[in-house]
Amino acid sequence: MILLKNIFLNPKVNEVLQINGWIRSIRKMKNVTFIMLNDGSCYKSLQVVLPKCQNDGLTYGSAISVKGALKCRDRVQNQDLGHKRGPQLELQAELVNLLGENNWKNYPIQKKPMSEDYLRSIPHLRLRTSTMAQTMRLRASILRELRRFLDERDFIETNPPLITSSDCEGAGETFQVIKKNIKRNGTTKQEDDLPSTIEFFNRPAHLTVSTQLHLEALALALNRVYTVTPAFRAEESKTSRHLAEFWMLELEQSFIDELDPLLHLAETLIKSVARQLLRTKHMYMESKEGYLTDRWQSLLNPWHRLCYDDAIHMMQRSSRCWNFEPKWGTDLQSEHEQWLTHEVGNKPLFVTDYPSAQKPFYMKDSTPKKSACFDLLFPEVGEVIGGSLRKDAKQELASAPKALEWYKDLRQYGSAPHGGFGLGIERLVSYLAREPNVRECIPFPRTAGMLLC
Amino acid sequence: MILLKNIFLNPKVNEVLQINGWIRSIRKMKNVTFIMLNDGSCYKSLQVVLPKCQNDGLTYGSAISVKGALKCRDRVQNQDLGHKRGPQLELQAELVNLLGENNWKNYPIQKKPMSEDYLRSIPHLRLRTSTMAQTMRLRASILRELRRFLDERDFIETNPPLITSSDCEGAGETFQVIKKNIKRNGTTKQEDDLPSTIEFFNRPAHLTVSTQLHLEALALALNRVYTVTPAFRAEESKTSRHLAEFWMLELEQSFIDELDPLLHLAETLIKSVARQLLRTKHMYMESKEGYLTDRWQSLLNPWHRLCYDDAIHMMQRSSRCWNFEPKWGTDLQSEHEQWLTHEVGNKPLFVTDYPSAQKPFYMKDSTPKKSACFDLLFPEVGEVIGGSLRKDAKQELASAPKALEWYKDLRQYGSAPHGGFGLGIERLVSYLAREPNVRECIPFPRTAGMLLC
Repeated sequence: MILLKNIFLNPKVNEVLQINGWIRSIRKMKNVTFIMLNDGSCYKSLQVVLPKCQNDGLTYGSAISVKGALKCRDRVQNQDLGHKRGPQLELQAELVNLLGENNWKNYPIQKKPMSEDYLRSIPHLRLRTSTMAQTMRLRASILRELRRFLDERDFIETNPPLITSSDCEGAGETFQVIKKNIKRNGTTKQEDDLPSTIEFFNRPAHLTVSTQLHLEALALALNRVYTVTPAFRAEESKTSRHLAEFWMLELEQSFIDELDPLLHLAETLIKSVARQLLRTKHMYMESKEGYLTDRWQSLLNPWHRLCYDDAIHMMQRSSRCWNFEPKWGTDLQSEHEQWLTHEVGNKPLFVTDYPSAQKPFYMKDSTPKKSACFDLLFPEVGEVIGGSLRKDAKQELASAPKALEWYKDLRQYGSAPHGGFGLGIERLVSYLAREPNVRECIPFPRTAGMLLC
Repeated sequence: MILLKNIFLNPKVNEVLQINGWIRSIRKMKNVTFIMLNDGSCYKSLQVVLPKCQNDGLTYGSAISVKGALKCRDRVQNQDLGHKRGPQLELQAELVNLLGENNWKNYPIQKKPMSEDYLRSIPHLRLRTSTMAQTMRLRASILRELRRFLDERDFIETNPPLITSSDCEGAGETFQVIKKNIKRNGTTKQEDDLPSTIEFFNRPAHLTVSTQLHLEALALALNRVYTVTPAFRAEESKTSRHLAEFWMLELEQSFIDELDPLLHLAETLIKSVARQLLRTKHMYMESKEGYLTDRWQSLLNPWHRLCYDDAIHMMQRSSRCWNFEPKWGTDLQSEHEQWLTHEVGNKPLFVTDYPSAQKPFYMKDSTPKKSACFDLLFPEVGEVIGGSLRKDAKQELASAPKALEWYKDLRQYGSAPHGGFGLGIERLVSYLAREPNVRECIPFPRTAGMLLC
């Protein structure tokens, strides 16, 4: 069983192959039938030519198995099918086997353009559209390169817990985890019963908003650690950049006492991903080819750094009309982030040394009232990475939540300077795949009021 | 900044190095001080020799930075420190910098043997013991090889959701996810208030027990998919093999209609991990060297397969006294699994074709009343993998839960034969690391009544 991906990478013309896939389009002519077959392994489809007598029950969307010889032929004669010119691989099928019919009259995935909102209402089927499938393959390549880069630099992959007793940043918007006593009536559950909850863990349990605190414990044992992990925020805000369940790469490195190595790591990490995508672009291309290549290529240019003070000054000096006036001591708004990345040439931008008063208890100071921290802002998607050095002396952690005695422990028993960052996977995919909404960057998006499948 | 791992892999004698780490043991002699320094990157520690005048404040467990020349010297003179004979690398330190003192009188990690129960009560610190750290590094290597193997075979990594509206196997023991209105009184949360819960998603939300159903939707779009994912079971049972939060590798492959390719994949996958561990054993070794090498090596021998019927007959024919009499139509008990793997030579064993009545609704039949399914049983840890072919015709899914209309959809729109399996990461680590309890195979274990840190 050979995948289309490998046929296109290494075509063996005249060989007899058996290929499985789904019919992306079908055109029944007088003597033959043309099929564009896709098997999900890559963006491209393969043209299959069948004798007419074999097309019974074959429709758009059905799953088939075909056997035949691989040929290479000139494409001009099929130009009316919208193909590009030039030689084209083609399978001359001898045998066709219908594996799964498509009830195509009711099929929610039609060949006409469909809105993203509509497609989000059928997440289990929208994965079959060539755009979503392409983004999912891109996501996989991005994850693979992120890990490869960190493995090579001796970061140890680890799995801190998702169910936690603390709520990392005190942000409050956490989900709680309970065990519900489900009463059964015959075979159906009475979901409308009042829940009889049980404290399974003998204490309140939350879903993590960030694994950072646990990663710190791991870094102070294993030196350099990372995790690619789901995290959860019960935020009501419905924006194109937020999900209730999202994935992060979080890493923590011991024995660093400056921000610079973290910024360097973040920059080389993402540039390495861009380079890898450029090397393997034949796997993703066609529909958005030019756009994406330019985008990935431009990431390889040098990136800018600004401290928070300078960022505020730059904005205050500009003549732009702001919805939120830039003011020292306040958070950067989305419009500020957009403007700043635009000003530095539509490129990624590090903003460092935010006022400590805005930042969580665990961040180390760089100078009085400033934190040794950074955000990495990207055009369009905003913050992709946030990181900092962490306070490593126990006396600095007086303001830590009471439940975090264990976290303070780390500082009295052989503490070491350390720092790290968290990278939002969906936001990175959003930028790299040029998908403006993170809901198209994860297979089954979860947001307030939205839990389909 | 160089890591010990790389010093041991590629020692550059006479080079001046700066090394950071934690003091594993310290011995203050008349003129010099001997330190065994470990930095978490590997199992081995490096001997550091300091001039006596530089040992102020240095104690067991403190974090230091040392600079000096790397030497290679004969180890016989330090045999009283318990070292092996033969040449030994050693750092002759000129400069020592104390980074973090250890409050060693209160340090919960003492150098004497500590029970696993005690260590579980301090998960944030037990990671620093050489055994736990070694298991965590081994876990990372296992994950890396699992992914490498699947990437190479064109499985696409994907991230199905953890918050789900359905409960995959109808097992019932799921956690529910709610949003709690937290009232704040000053700065402390009133955790003892009655929770005012909100249906954030407008419907009940659960933590997934398996991502399989969503993976099937992904496989019918992308062909071959896998995920390395946390999963959750609110099981009260406290055994050495169960966690409330655990990690699984789950994969799903389209266009297969026999079990054999899945069994072959499972076997070659785990053998590939064993081979990789044997290649890199210098990273994990010393304390358990012989045991582990033998264990990994023996995995490379051929594995046995038995169908459920034969397994039951074998047990019924034996003269053993059972706590649970083996009886056709009942689940295999832990003692049955142990006995069977022992009978086939203390090796992994596939048991296939269980009675359908015991199995979830989605499994395809192999013959009437039998499911096309398998469990992979390991000595000591029991089931490591469970998998099956899935029903791919809509009419076979009449017994599916009502909430799973979307899952039935997959069968009416271009369905294809497919199957997959789930591998329990902690159980595999438990066997490969020879750690009898899965709680030692994950950094922060969660079980009923146990939520520390």
